[in-house]
Amino acid sequence: MAQPRTNLTINPQRLWDQIMETAAFGATAKGGIKRLTLTDDDKRVRDWFRAQAEALGCTVTVDEVGNMFARRPGRDDGLPPIAMGSHLDTQPTGGKFDGVLGVLGALEAMRTLVETGYETNAPVEVVNWTNEEGSRFAPAMLASGVHAGVFTPDYAYAREDREGKKFGEELERIGYRGAEKAGAYKLGALFELHIEQGPILEDEGKTIGVVQGVQGMRWYEVTVTGQESHTGATPMHLRRNALLGAARMVERVHGIALAHPPGVGTVGLVEVRPNSRNVVPGEVFFTVDFRHPEEDVLDAMEREFRAALPEELAPLKLECDEKRIWNSPAVKFDPDLIACVRHGAEQAGYPTRDMVSGAGHDAAYVARVAPTTMIFVPCLGGISHNEEESTTFDECAAGAQVLLNAVLEYDRRFAG
Amino acid sequence: MAQPRTNLTINPQRLWDQIMETAAFGATAKGGIKRLTLTDDDKRVRDWFRAQAEALGCTVTVDEVGNMFARRPGRDDGLPPIAMGSHLDTQPTGGKFDGVLGVLGALEAMRTLVETGYETNAPVEVVNWTNEEGSRFAPAMLASGVHAGVFTPDYAYAREDREGKKFGEELERIGYRGAEKAGAYKLGALFELHIEQGPILEDEGKTIGVVQGVQGMRWYEVTVTGQESHTGATPMHLRRNALLGAARMVERVHGIALAHPPGVGTVGLVEVRPNSRNVVPGEVFFTVDFRHPEEDVLDAMEREFRAALPEELAPLKLECDEKRIWNSPAVKFDPDLIACVRHGAEQAGYPTRDMVSGAGHDAAYVARVAPTTMIFVPCLGGISHNEEESTTFDECAAGAQVLLNAVLEYDRRFAG
Repeated sequence: MAQPRTNLTINPQRLWDQIMETAAFGATAKGGIKRLTLTDDDKRVRDWFRAQAEALGCTVTVDEVGNMFARRPGRDDGLPPIAMGSHLDTQPTGGKFDGVLGVLGALEAMRTLVETGYETNAPVEVVNWTNEEGSRFAPAMLASGVHAGVFTPDYAYAREDREGKKFGEELERIGYRGAEKAGAYKLGALFELHIEQGPILEDEGKTIGVVQGVQGMRWYEVTVTGQESHTGATPMHLRRNALLGAARMVERVHGIALAHPPGVGTVGLVEVRPNSRNVVPGEVFFTVDFRHPEEDVLDAMEREFRAALPEELAPLKLECDEKRIWNSPAVKFDPDLIACVRHGAEQAGYPTRDMVSGAGHDAAYVARVAPTTMIFVPCLGGISHNEEESTTFDECAAGAQVLLNAVLEYDRRFAG
Repeated sequence: MAQPRTNLTINPQRLWDQIMETAAFGATAKGGIKRLTLTDDDKRVRDWFRAQAEALGCTVTVDEVGNMFARRPGRDDGLPPIAMGSHLDTQPTGGKFDGVLGVLGALEAMRTLVETGYETNAPVEVVNWTNEEGSRFAPAMLASGVHAGVFTPDYAYAREDREGKKFGEELERIGYRGAEKAGAYKLGALFELHIEQGPILEDEGKTIGVVQGVQGMRWYEVTVTGQESHTGATPMHLRRNALLGAARMVERVHGIALAHPPGVGTVGLVEVRPNSRNVVPGEVFFTVDFRHPEEDVLDAMEREFRAALPEELAPLKLECDEKRIWNSPAVKFDPDLIACVRHGAEQAGYPTRDMVSGAGHDAAYVARVAPTTMIFVPCLGGISHNEEESTTFDECAAGAQVLLNAVLEYDRRFAG
């Protein structure tokens, strides 16, 4: 045990340079990245990642759905590996940090271990999950879902993009359909570093989000039906204005979320029919997105929402059709891993905030089969899935350092 | 004066048959009409109309923008003619009655005069105005606008459809660019029979709308700007939700209209950006349509609307851009003509209701240059601009009879 245990320090400049270097694979004119999963650009960044990992002496394996694992042996190589990683695919007009920071931050942590010759008890792996975004092949988090047993490989292979190309064919085409069965060996732990994709850390001046879990999410679709009629010739009392009913539901969804902190509720998509300046809207379709860390509170929000529909619509002589189209249960991350993240942030001197992820991540699926948690760093204005996505040099460095610290702490405390 | 003055009766079956006969020119599978202005179908119905009028001994003249006038001389042919009519063009998925009833009802009234040999003091004309609908060539009421001096002929000629074809070229092509200057001779009066295009008459069980004028109309465009953000990762208190602001304005527009009866106010068109289920809307564009018979009340409604924008949007940290894009002043119809319509309806024994037209009509422009009024009959459910548009046999007959009665009353009282 000759290695120093607590002062391994990542190289922030090298991390930043690699973020900028890989941003060239699918770079957009506005400074973002368009690197849809299983495209030629995705192959280029995968090849780059494999070469970097192998140069560090890691063994890279690829599973049957393209998930990549770059492994450095531990002192006891029979222990389940401690994994860290995220995804290298992006949205069509994505930024430089979403997913990328989690993989390259992990690679930088790995490089630090290698350069210092630090020996972990357990093997350590850097993971690149396939198709986290789901932009090209829905649903999102497809291959971590296969890893976790949520989807079968055949389900994944059969997903089609808008041109009718299949996930399985494209995986073969770029040479990343591996031999290894997905989820065949258990991870001992997974730490996922990610940008927050929300404004909380920035708003409160905190550097590290200690993520407790992922909110439960429920999606609904509502169609409100009234009667389309002439705006000039239809007196107010004879209208059946579907948009007025929908507007009142936008207000109610907002109110229901406010009544259940820290829950959120959003009408994000609205289609008005016929959507003409001089026609009273006869039909409005809208979506509702409710999220909360507690399932029983989500149950209450759902009840209140469903009660609000007739309350608001019946007095306006409107009818409605409502259905829940998605239900993603809340995820609680592993307390031991959370403790290691908190320790790692304190060790590095960063102010933290406990938080719950509002968005879905690979870690949410992996949490079903392995102890898992996440580390968040701020992003400017909370803006993500956007070419303007921005996390600073120092924030990237902080995230990678806390990731390394947390992995080492976990290795010392739980893999010893 | 050998003719009976008060008991000329139109032939309801003949009127109905001609409505159904001409509905074949541009008939749609769903029982409506697609007869866009200056198309081959428009030429066919124009040719039919000309032939019918000439068979009755009328002289048909066509002005430089295609308006057709079928004239029967009066006893004193130097008097300005008493005109009745509307338009034969339709919406892309129009019904069988909008405009058509006004022309064919007038033709039936003319035929009744001819068959009974009734001699009017003034000449009587049946008018077919070109391009009332504005669906193919915007704006609507184009050729009655030229007649009234609102637009120049050259402005009309230069209007283009979506394929880049010009109004002037298409008018030439179908052979309906006449020699006569638009508006060259003054009409003594214009009576326009039309379906209500609203639900009031049906709702109150009245047969004849005695139209007092046309509401003033003002159109606005509003863009509300907030900040698009992730629905899951953005807490309620850090949102700048443009849709919430727009929803509150939908409510305010509704309330402002309710506070100023018989005014109406409508948000008819809404575009949410980016319009995605899991993105808090960053921008919403919507239109507002306010109408009222009194200009000073419209001024008040506009003031309240403009005050409501910052009241609703500022607390939500939203910005907005608002502009008035159209202002069509209220029109008051001629009291003498209105009296003749009321007399004509009483004479025929139909229950009436005074009303103000909520929609624009050729008569609204013509009112600038000649005494004008309108006669409304019910349409089922207030539905118009729709293939399901429906007015009954008896209602069509009632409208044409009241039109004839009103023209004769006007001829007796004011053209003597």
